[in-house]
Parts: sequence; C-alpha cells; structure tokens
Amino acid sequence: MEKRNIYAKIPADLSNEVFEVLVQSKKVKIERIVSKGHTSPDTGWYDQEQNEWVIVLKGNADISFENGPVINLKEGEYINIPAYKRHKVINTSIIPETVWLAVHY
Amino acid sequence: MEKRNIYAKIPADLSNEVFEVLVQSKKVKIERIVSKGHTSPDTGWYDQEQNEWVIVLKGNADISFENGPVINLKEGEYINIPAYKRHKVINTSIIPETVWLAVHY
Repeated sequence: MEKRNIYAKIPADLSNEVFEVLVQSKKVKIERIVSKGHTSPDTGWYDQEQNEWVIVLKGNADISFENGPVINLKEGEYINIPAYKRHKVINTSIIPETVWLAVHY
Repeated sequence: MEKRNIYAKIPADLSNEVFEVLVQSKKVKIERIVSKGHTSPDTGWYDQEQNEWVIVLKGNADISFENGPVINLKEGEYINIPAYKRHKVINTSIIPETVWLAVHY
C-alpha cells in the first residue's frame, strides 16, 4: 500500500492522450487521463457499456453529447455519464494540460 | 446530466465531518468528504467490507494503519485501502479544510 500523486509523473511525451489505470477490479476501473489539446475519440462517439463518473482536476475540457449540449468542465467540475450516452471530447486545454480522473462502473 | 464542482458548496457548518454521496450503485459508491481538524472514527478503527480508493484534493490528512505506518496525504495524493485493512484518520487540516474524494468498491 503506497501513496501516489495524481499530478505527478506527467508523461513527457503527450503527443497522444495518456490513459493510466489506477484501479481495476471486476466492478470498477479508476483511471487517470492526461490530455493536451487532444480530442477523442478520433472519429465518431464514445458509446460505453459502463457508466462513467469523470472529474477534471487540472486544466479544462469540452464534452459534446449527441443531440445534447456541450459541457465545459473546469478544475474541480465533474459529471456522471450514463452507459450508452454518446459523447466525445471536443477540446482540452494545452496550458496547463488536462488531468482527468475517471471512474468506470 | 448536470455538472457540479467538487470544491463548491462547502457546508458552512463543519462542526462534524460531512459525507456526501455523489454516486451510489450496486457496485460502487463515490463520495465527497469534508473534514476540518476532525479525526475519525470516534473510537476504534475503520474496518470496511469494501475496498476504498481515496484521494485528498484539498488540504492534507494523516491516516494511521493498524500495525502499520502513518501515511500523510497532501493535495493530489491517493491511496488504495484494501477491504478489512484497519485504519483511522488521525489528523486533518483546518486551513484549508480537507476535501476528500473516496471510491468504495
């Protein structure tokens, strides 16, 4: 059992978004995502089998929902995305990079 | 689907620790905890049936483990506490108050 820091060890190479799994169990996956101007997915929509609770801890980002609004998430802001709710990330900050924490459940 | 801010609406009355459930499903509970100099539990140890991944987002705190070390968590630091790992919170900051995010799974 060891502590770690969510803001530490930001990869030097952020040419791609970086996904790191912090916890993986049968029931839940917790991950850190670091974005830097990225949008995702490359084409189409995220259309996920699990619910996703996600918070922006650093930077900011815009998430677009199919037939829905664009939601801007600033530092500390979170949202709960139901399974199969189609969405995509249409903007993420570059300075600073965007640090997300996501809980898939 | 609505965004909220983890740092907002800090209760004015922090005479007791404040636990707020952000997500509750069969599989997972996500909660915000705000402490201000509190220690917990009042007596004995937390001895939980579920695993707990917990991060300090603001302030700092000390967690003591039975037959183990005291771990100090500063802003951004997280730890994964296995089920039935006895522990207690022996210190939390007052200025600023301590904002935790906990995922029970």
